[in-house]
Amino acid sequence: MLDSLFRPRGVAVMGASNNPLSIGHIVVKNLKTYGFKGEIYPINPKQPEILGLKAYKSILDVPGPVDICCIAVKSVLVPQMVEDCGRKGVKFVIIHTAGFREMGGEGAKLEDALLEAARKYGVRVYGPNCQGIMNSDPDISVYANFTFTPLNQGKASIIGQSGGVAELINLNLRNMGSGFRIYASHGNASDVNTNEILEYLGNDPETHTIMMHIESMKDTPGFIERCRKIAREKSILAIRTGRTTAAATAVSSHTGSLIQQDSLTDAVFERAGVMRFQIAEEMIAAGYALSIQPVPSGPNVGIIANAGGPGIIAIDECVLNGLTLARFSDETKKKLRDGLIPEAYVENPVDVAATATPEHFALTLDLLNKDPNVDSILITMVTPPFVDCEGLARSITEASRKMTKPILVCVQTNENWAGTVAIIRDAGIPVYNYPETASRALAAMVRYGEIRKRLAEPPAQAAGDKARAGEILSKSKAGFISQAAAFAVLAAYDIPAARTVPVSGAPASLPEVTFPAVLKVDSEKIVHKSDEGGVALNLGDKEALQKAFADMSGRFPEADFVVQEQCPAGTEVIIGIKREEGIGPVMMFGLGGVYVEMLKDVSFRLPPLSEADAARMVREIRSLPLLEGGRGLEPSDIAAIEQLLIQVSRMAMDLPEISEMDLNPVIVYPKGKGVKVVDARIKKQ
Amino acid sequence: MLDSLFRPRGVAVMGASNNPLSIGHIVVKNLKTYGFKGEIYPINPKQPEILGLKAYKSILDVPGPVDICCIAVKSVLVPQMVEDCGRKGVKFVIIHTAGFREMGGEGAKLEDALLEAARKYGVRVYGPNCQGIMNSDPDISVYANFTFTPLNQGKASIIGQSGGVAELINLNLRNMGSGFRIYASHGNASDVNTNEILEYLGNDPETHTIMMHIESMKDTPGFIERCRKIAREKSILAIRTGRTTAAATAVSSHTGSLIQQDSLTDAVFERAGVMRFQIAEEMIAAGYALSIQPVPSGPNVGIIANAGGPGIIAIDECVLNGLTLARFSDETKKKLRDGLIPEAYVENPVDVAATATPEHFALTLDLLNKDPNVDSILITMVTPPFVDCEGLARSITEASRKMTKPILVCVQTNENWAGTVAIIRDAGIPVYNYPETASRALAAMVRYGEIRKRLAEPPAQAAGDKARAGEILSKSKAGFISQAAAFAVLAAYDIPAARTVPVSGAPASLPEVTFPAVLKVDSEKIVHKSDEGGVALNLGDKEALQKAFADMSGRFPEADFVVQEQCPAGTEVIIGIKREEGIGPVMMFGLGGVYVEMLKDVSFRLPPLSEADAARMVREIRSLPLLEGGRGLEPSDIAAIEQLLIQVSRMAMDLPEISEMDLNPVIVYPKGKGVKVVDARIKKQ
Repeated sequence: MLDSLFRPRGVAVMGASNNPLSIGHIVVKNLKTYGFKGEIYPINPKQPEILGLKAYKSILDVPGPVDICCIAVKSVLVPQMVEDCGRKGVKFVIIHTAGFREMGGEGAKLEDALLEAARKYGVRVYGPNCQGIMNSDPDISVYANFTFTPLNQGKASIIGQSGGVAELINLNLRNMGSGFRIYASHGNASDVNTNEILEYLGNDPETHTIMMHIESMKDTPGFIERCRKIAREKSILAIRTGRTTAAATAVSSHTGSLIQQDSLTDAVFERAGVMRFQIAEEMIAAGYALSIQPVPSGPNVGIIANAGGPGIIAIDECVLNGLTLARFSDETKKKLRDGLIPEAYVENPVDVAATATPEHFALTLDLLNKDPNVDSILITMVTPPFVDCEGLARSITEASRKMTKPILVCVQTNENWAGTVAIIRDAGIPVYNYPETASRALAAMVRYGEIRKRLAEPPAQAAGDKARAGEILSKSKAGFISQAAAFAVLAAYDIPAARTVPVSGAPASLPEVTFPAVLKVDSEKIVHKSDEGGVALNLGDKEALQKAFADMSGRFPEADFVVQEQCPAGTEVIIGIKREEGIGPVMMFGLGGVYVEMLKDVSFRLPPLSEADAARMVREIRSLPLLEGGRGLEPSDIAAIEQLLIQVSRMAMDLPEISEMDLNPVIVYPKGKGVKVVDARIKKQ
Repeated sequence: MLDSLFRPRGVAVMGASNNPLSIGHIVVKNLKTYGFKGEIYPINPKQPEILGLKAYKSILDVPGPVDICCIAVKSVLVPQMVEDCGRKGVKFVIIHTAGFREMGGEGAKLEDALLEAARKYGVRVYGPNCQGIMNSDPDISVYANFTFTPLNQGKASIIGQSGGVAELINLNLRNMGSGFRIYASHGNASDVNTNEILEYLGNDPETHTIMMHIESMKDTPGFIERCRKIAREKSILAIRTGRTTAAATAVSSHTGSLIQQDSLTDAVFERAGVMRFQIAEEMIAAGYALSIQPVPSGPNVGIIANAGGPGIIAIDECVLNGLTLARFSDETKKKLRDGLIPEAYVENPVDVAATATPEHFALTLDLLNKDPNVDSILITMVTPPFVDCEGLARSITEASRKMTKPILVCVQTNENWAGTVAIIRDAGIPVYNYPETASRALAAMVRYGEIRKRLAEPPAQAAGDKARAGEILSKSKAGFISQAAAFAVLAAYDIPAARTVPVSGAPASLPEVTFPAVLKVDSEKIVHKSDEGGVALNLGDKEALQKAFADMSGRFPEADFVVQEQCPAGTEVIIGIKREEGIGPVMMFGLGGVYVEMLKDVSFRLPPLSEADAARMVREIRSLPLLEGGRGLEPSDIAAIEQLLIQVSRMAMDLPEISEMDLNPVIVYPKGKGVKVVDARIKKQ
């Protein structure tokens, strides 16, 4: 439990001094300046007083309980300081000092030493090489951090692996007129880690939204599990840095962390219900709105503008980001027509015109609030010098009080209209500078609404004889199992596949074989069967099959073989599972051939899939139109692909012994005609 | 010439009044507040004085010369006012009043009436339904505009079709600590238009950058011509709004309908040398930097950070936007290692650490400036409370004075470090809030450097017998010309095509035919030849050809035919020309079949192409890997495609009578083996 970390009674600061440029000094100053409600204990062997507070020679001299000791002394001294903290009964040390594992070598040894000292006394370690924590709860008001942004209250909490990025979030929330609830930048995370902090924030009732900066992930399954639980109630937003190889290289030298493939990040976040953003500004804009406004019940936005151009920008951005322009009811349009000036445009977006009065705004907001076709309201307004702009602002805040729909406002203005902006902000309505930013923030809110629904979807059901599949796999050696075994595993999950019969002797008596047939070599040593002449196609009858067998068994004297029905041609797709280190199984889907190999047009998901997940996974690839058909192309049996994905998802969950599986190709037939797996590779771990 | 508009001696304001909420009042106030250097003449029949200035009953009473008369009276009165202006000898009327062509019907008639009055006296009309103009030149300082952003000097000029969007640009330039040179928001543009203003700004030496908001374009060729000239010396940046409405257009298989409004905008801007931005904020951030910093000589950026995380963001964004992380010379690295603290990271990005001093910054900047591998410098800095941040700022400004490389800075800070930010900004260095914004602005600068080079590329040369092609076309009727004629036109341009011989009688004596051959019906009435049974493939000898001819001529008794050599299979591509209304010829390129029809994977260019244009046009499609080969796929003859594009470009320029042309398919053979046009459709207008 991190309660003593985020709600401490007493905070000691080792390295506190009267040098205003020392980190210890700044931490004491921050604690004091922002009104920490507990006791502050500067520790300094030489100074009797720091910033007007009594200083103690040692932590052991401190009279009261110390929940946190901030440590900002030379790195070599840190293990001893932690030991002292242990003897005092300190619950958490926040180690600001750098020069530990991120430096490698001696630094890593030093980190091990301080961790050992901590373990000995049951002290929890936060950091090292970290900024610290803050909690803006007025009952606590703790700023145990050496950074410089004033403490402003808000409903969004921040977790930053990098202090600089956490600060970027905090600063810009503040620039937008907001603040944070809890702030945690934990550097090397040698003990207290992201997942534990996440869990704490999940349980903090005043945290409405969590914004994260992630460089690397240590316990991905734990991350996913916690996020899925939290994200049903509060939105989790994240940026991940180190996306490019160049950046990943710098990250590894910067924090010494493991580099993960960026393509997997999307799949992990998707499964976790975390909203990923490519740039910090968009995340902050969205998190700000999500922390103070209700989630839209649907994608239909009503836009109100008092200048045409910015309203047009808002439409473009809303539509391009997945929103729908609400179609107003006839009643709404009629009443707008009656109540606004003749030059006003009463379709969506409503252009109330630059001369619009507070009453015009009030009327429009009221009508859009009542119109059931509208799920959210976006206002883009300028502040014309010939209008009572504070009156406009008050119309907005009054309307919002009666509203259950979210409302976001872009105000194009300057400092002379600060009062107008303040009126809107103080009512808990987010205000943005750019119509694009406001539109994207709203789109993100709708996306969160969809995530919440998605997280409630149950895993899709699929038949599967886990015991039988397990038995087949248990009989195989590690590595690629035989074709015969692979098809038997598929059969245990009722997966539609080309009928495949193992043959070891001459295939004279194979009543199950239908012609035309295919003969394939089945050997772990022959990976590229076709290339090595291990596939004979179009065998029209028993005689042709026997001839092919005679030929092939001569060339592959040690191998086994399978005979397979030859399936008619169709659209080829690939479905795969790969068990990723530290993550678990990841499923892949794509069109076969050049689409997957050359154009890398694939989608990923972490199982188990819901039915809707399977549908989304198919629809995510760029080449979807080739499955959907049209223009002379017959529509493919997408439902059958979805069903197959669900069966494969079940396999991935049931059979951890499968480290890799490739169904390649799966032939997809026209709508209603199903799919057939023609080739399957399963690797047992 | 717009000199009297942007550098007026006297400005009159009709509709000036003492009502502080009237537009006329605000225009007078703005002119006065921002220190207009000429005379201000309020016109009001009833008030003797407005805002302390003598008011005149009529424009005819004004004693001095009036270059501009701002008109903010009821729309029905405007034509008469324009007439009065004409009698007075006013050069430009700026009509703020709305209710003209944008309203249709009576409004359009009113606009015609005022234009007629203006023409009668040679008065130029700016607007109507417009904000107005501003010029921040201290010799002029004119604010003939009813908007509300204070006048701040800068080197970027603004053209906005929408006043609200022009204001968005102006406001946010100012929020970033900058300003504008000339501001023009011209509403309905009934007379003075975007192109004329562009030309004026092109000739204004103090305009270093032009930022535009475009909704629609009237004279596109004129726009392109002016921009190409201006953009060699100053950058032109633009956003276009109304992107999504156009995207709804239905799509069909041939070139014409594939060109959708918005991709056409890209092609026009590309040809014009205009940098397109999707969101206003990115344009403004880039325009700000381009207006005050030199253009980078290449893509290699050196990054300096005093906090790791934001530096990592900068790498991601730089690399994702086309920049390269500079590789420092060994000397640079050695000197960094010697001069910085041991914890510093001396690769790119240089992490000087949060404790870095002004001397550390100065050293690093000096080394990166001297390193020939570095083309530009990006700094991401926080303002640690334990560091002399103003000293850091001074190190930056001093270094920049010795520098010819551009330098951009992201400062993460708050109002307590306003002095630090001011020091950097006042030295003409752009400062941003977000590392992403700074990185993208820098990437745009590099993009502009490439545009400048591109605009200097000569059109590629290609052989072509224009006279012969013209003669063939002149013999054809308007509409789709015959296959025989189309192939003859291609031959006039030496375009490699399947040998195609027209036949009208039984093809007994065709010495030119090689077998296998193809017989195709050649009739303007039969558009989808294959679907209608008008193509016979694989004719192995003369006998087969004659048989096919007998059959087909029975079914198409009125038609002509062509016999064509049957070309071996290869990769199929499509090349097209479509002459777009108001724009001119647009070329299209894509892979054939599903890639163009289903996946819409095409690139567009406005001819004439340079050699590099042709190369870029091929490389822009997503399915390029299929042409490049690899993974068992032979590389295609991309050089031959480029050559063909150049020949088609020449045709497009030479032969305006061609309104559409589709070479579909063009078969592309492996590298060195060339291309062959197999089917061609040419539409004559």
